[in-house]
Amino acid sequence: MSDLDYIRACIRDVPDFPKPGILFKDIAPLVEDAKGFMTTIDMMAARWADSGVERIAGLESRGFIFGCALAYKMGVGTALLRKPGKLPSDTVSVEYSLEYGTDSIEMHTDAVTSGMKVLLVDDLLATGGTAGAGLKLLRAQGAHIVGCAFVIELSFLHGRNALEGVPVDSLITY
Amino acid sequence: MSDLDYIRACIRDVPDFPKPGILFKDIAPLVEDAKGFMTTIDMMAARWADSGVERIAGLESRGFIFGCALAYKMGVGTALLRKPGKLPSDTVSVEYSLEYGTDSIEMHTDAVTSGMKVLLVDDLLATGGTAGAGLKLLRAQGAHIVGCAFVIELSFLHGRNALEGVPVDSLITY
Repeated sequence: MSDLDYIRACIRDVPDFPKPGILFKDIAPLVEDAKGFMTTIDMMAARWADSGVERIAGLESRGFIFGCALAYKMGVGTALLRKPGKLPSDTVSVEYSLEYGTDSIEMHTDAVTSGMKVLLVDDLLATGGTAGAGLKLLRAQGAHIVGCAFVIELSFLHGRNALEGVPVDSLITY
Repeated sequence: MSDLDYIRACIRDVPDFPKPGILFKDIAPLVEDAKGFMTTIDMMAARWADSGVERIAGLESRGFIFGCALAYKMGVGTALLRKPGKLPSDTVSVEYSLEYGTDSIEMHTDAVTSGMKVLLVDDLLATGGTAGAGLKLLRAQGAHIVGCAFVIELSFLHGRNALEGVPVDSLITY
């Protein structure tokens, strides 16, 4: 079995979550599996090894799972992009659209510095709403985005359209 | 400067968060700092190297930051203990008391197996409410708890009282 097939076999389909008709891709079994998780992190690290990345940006909270382990592996730190009201110091925030209504994410103003090479990490690329908002936040602070890394991409939702101009890599595509 | 002094210097005091009179210990600068974060993970791994740990249990969401990097370093997987409604498959949950009202955490029923040696990880031990609830969940699934690992402990809140009978280790104590 190839490494990618092993990772794919660790992802669980859960029908009708969070609502009827949605087939949810559950990464919990992958995170529980030592070989699956380590292979995932090692593959992501290899794919961005030549990017010059200086800081990971992790999207709360499943982005922390992969982003912080990847940061450890690559020897860099992680900027935390969190839901509103969680970060205690001075923050910048950006709103983004959901299917119904809006949500927003926040980042400390000093989480990245101007010109810093940043790799955005999340578990899954769907419509790209959250990741696109993350890019906006990072760019507003002057970050140079080297790319976006996902474990899973739901390509039929065309999330890459929200991340135009940025290299995007996903390990597993549905 | 010793490794512990370096880690301590990366933790930021934020007054009056989340409410007036509270001095918040902000781990964001530590997570952003490559040396600080890697030293933290390496020290935690060294302290539990002989514990026989087979799985980390990470508490959402700051526990994911340290727990998943530690799991990568130690070559084990991570069980995700999450806020209600986030986990898609069959779950068990437990309620715990807050200063006002209650909260609860959930875990997939198959996140640990009976007899599995589990290390609970979170960023900070305060009153021990969340970590104590995590221990209950893990034990209800038959896990053998080898210990609880924290980056920071606020010892004046006596959180260890909520974790009786379990080895507890914190890198930094206030």
